[in-house]
Amino acid sequence: MRARAAKVMPSSAFGHVGTALLPANYPQFFERAEGAYVWDADGNRYLDYMCAFGPNLLGYRDPRVESAASAQAARGDVMTGPSPLAVELAEKFVEIVAHADWAFFCKNGTDATTIARTIARAQTGRRKILIAEGSYHGAAPWCTPFPAGTVPEDRAHMLTFTFNDIASLEAAVAEAGDDLAGIIATPFKHEAFANQELPTQNYARRCREICDATGAVLVVDDVRAGFRLAVDCSWATVGVEPDLSCWGKCFANGYSISAVMGSNRVKQGADSIFATGSFWQSAISMAAALATLDIIRDGKVIEKTARLGQRLRDGLDQVSRRHGFTLNQTGPAQMPQILFEGDPDFRIGFAWTSAMIDHGFYLHPWHNMFLCDAMTEEDIDQTISAADSAFASVRAALPTLQPHERVLALFSARAH
Amino acid sequence: MRARAAKVMPSSAFGHVGTALLPANYPQFFERAEGAYVWDADGNRYLDYMCAFGPNLLGYRDPRVESAASAQAARGDVMTGPSPLAVELAEKFVEIVAHADWAFFCKNGTDATTIARTIARAQTGRRKILIAEGSYHGAAPWCTPFPAGTVPEDRAHMLTFTFNDIASLEAAVAEAGDDLAGIIATPFKHEAFANQELPTQNYARRCREICDATGAVLVVDDVRAGFRLAVDCSWATVGVEPDLSCWGKCFANGYSISAVMGSNRVKQGADSIFATGSFWQSAISMAAALATLDIIRDGKVIEKTARLGQRLRDGLDQVSRRHGFTLNQTGPAQMPQILFEGDPDFRIGFAWTSAMIDHGFYLHPWHNMFLCDAMTEEDIDQTISAADSAFASVRAALPTLQPHERVLALFSARAH
Repeated sequence: MRARAAKVMPSSAFGHVGTALLPANYPQFFERAEGAYVWDADGNRYLDYMCAFGPNLLGYRDPRVESAASAQAARGDVMTGPSPLAVELAEKFVEIVAHADWAFFCKNGTDATTIARTIARAQTGRRKILIAEGSYHGAAPWCTPFPAGTVPEDRAHMLTFTFNDIASLEAAVAEAGDDLAGIIATPFKHEAFANQELPTQNYARRCREICDATGAVLVVDDVRAGFRLAVDCSWATVGVEPDLSCWGKCFANGYSISAVMGSNRVKQGADSIFATGSFWQSAISMAAALATLDIIRDGKVIEKTARLGQRLRDGLDQVSRRHGFTLNQTGPAQMPQILFEGDPDFRIGFAWTSAMIDHGFYLHPWHNMFLCDAMTEEDIDQTISAADSAFASVRAALPTLQPHERVLALFSARAH
Repeated sequence: MRARAAKVMPSSAFGHVGTALLPANYPQFFERAEGAYVWDADGNRYLDYMCAFGPNLLGYRDPRVESAASAQAARGDVMTGPSPLAVELAEKFVEIVAHADWAFFCKNGTDATTIARTIARAQTGRRKILIAEGSYHGAAPWCTPFPAGTVPEDRAHMLTFTFNDIASLEAAVAEAGDDLAGIIATPFKHEAFANQELPTQNYARRCREICDATGAVLVVDDVRAGFRLAVDCSWATVGVEPDLSCWGKCFANGYSISAVMGSNRVKQGADSIFATGSFWQSAISMAAALATLDIIRDGKVIEKTARLGQRLRDGLDQVSRRHGFTLNQTGPAQMPQILFEGDPDFRIGFAWTSAMIDHGFYLHPWHNMFLCDAMTEEDIDQTISAADSAFASVRAALPTLQPHERVLALFSARAH
């Protein structure tokens, strides 16, 4: 499949699911997915800790969501206007998300962040947008982490500050002056190749205060973390309500839909913009979202995935120590990032996750992972048991490990 | 439904399917779609000449496409990597589209045009991009027709020329100088509120020659017209092959997927860029696309829709003349634009399409329409018969017709 793909697809076509920056034994193509498991094109089964990089929340092909989607498929999907489900879905979101008075549905997470930025500028008539250095807000020219083919003007009026650093935030606000349109906040720091970091309450509150004082718009980009930390915007966990929030990934359990939620304070700006896509009114995706929201709103999915994530974290800490490794397990337990202490070029992490793939467990050496509601305590315990064996083989191979060439190239490019 | 929507959705959330710029009797919400018909939220049935603004090519819920989609839904959709269908689909596109050596799949038409622009710049290391004045290439900040919330820098290095006007094209090329990265060509002129216009062979060839001479990249934006004029890129009709083409709308018969196709000449640029989305590897959409391409590749869909479109055009010409109206029916017959001669503020067109809605025929007063393969000669003949009656009622009401307020406001804003 890889050889056939190389003939008819650019390597960039794999995007965030490309395996070029992973150990060589990672599968690139998947035939099937069910519950917590995926099967690759060669028929190998993996317990999938990536959950499609987020969209799988309840378990792949959750029957409650599939049944809602197929019932709608029998009526219609993309039509010459939205179905009434668009209104029902907006009403449901407004009930669940405390700051939201209205909802806007689109397709990509990048659509949602781009629309939020556009609304912030339309609402305020100002230009400057602040984001945390290194935060990922999508792959459009204004926010892509890899700028090939973009021009410097694509990032005009974007200013950066250091996550959780109030002095740095205030310096960026001062630089924006009376032209500050908004702050796009990542709900917690979840960068590739780095430890995750939760926001301090003081930092989140300062973002809110600055927007209140200046009339700027506070946006929380909850595309990745939304409904994994709270049955609300993720900054409900630190007691701060944004004006706008961006959603995607998991709220239709894998069906293609993203969203912008807003308060009436910024409704005028939202009314004034133009953004649209051929498939944004897809009724199947909205039916899937309604079914998913009905399941997640009692909070049990978050409770269970957090509990299983903690069980995994505790177990891995214990067995890794047995083999002389110290893990940096950071961020919310249900969205784990697992890095090795003293592994600056990631050779240990690559060797360990590569061994885990051989055991049938799909973990990621440098991107945060996700737990899903279809996982069981048995799944977690089997993961810990396989990890024990994988730590042992990495320990034995340690003197001969080499770093991955593409990782070295990436780090070298970043340093320049 | 409209009152409920106004509480929880910004008016902008309807995008191109919003009815604010249409006669008051147009339905906003649709319950169901089947074949050539849609049913609104009140249960009224319409023969749908908008075809979801393009995605409906074969007929809504075509059983061959639905069966492929539901078979894939039973295996998996968005997973932790693409399914093998991604490769099969790229191979099939490369077989069908003459200029294409590779394919890249995304979600929105705007994704495809943005990626094409990025590849053109990455391939050439240059910045200037030419587009025809008034052409629609999507709703991102760099191309949206309504710039609320964008900044002038979003359009940096974009130059415009007049469609089909070689002197104007050459002037823009001269302005770009040695910084010309590419020309994004609309396959034919299909603007709102205007007559459509096919490209002259000389104009299309000149675009190709300029790119050959300068090393710039020729892009055809076939999102709207792709596979409606040719079983190939639309400029196959004028004998010109681009380096890149953008696809969307109809090639999965309504399932959410768009694409960029390219030749190996620009593969290096394509390999180098980063663009991705949470749902771009959706296997259901790819299964639907494979089934749709299998149906359209023998050319019979184009042949039938063109023939029915010509039958409609001839019939409407005849009956409109009977009531003293002259229609401007422009563009390919299967993508009709129907405007009235001597109707500068569109009051006649609005009255006529409004009467047609009352008869159960969904036409559009200012946007090009689409025929689908599920339409029959009987559907066309019933449309012509209803049109006869609608022309009569418009003729009778002519002295009292008023222009639509929002149209006046739009024209007034454009004039300033």
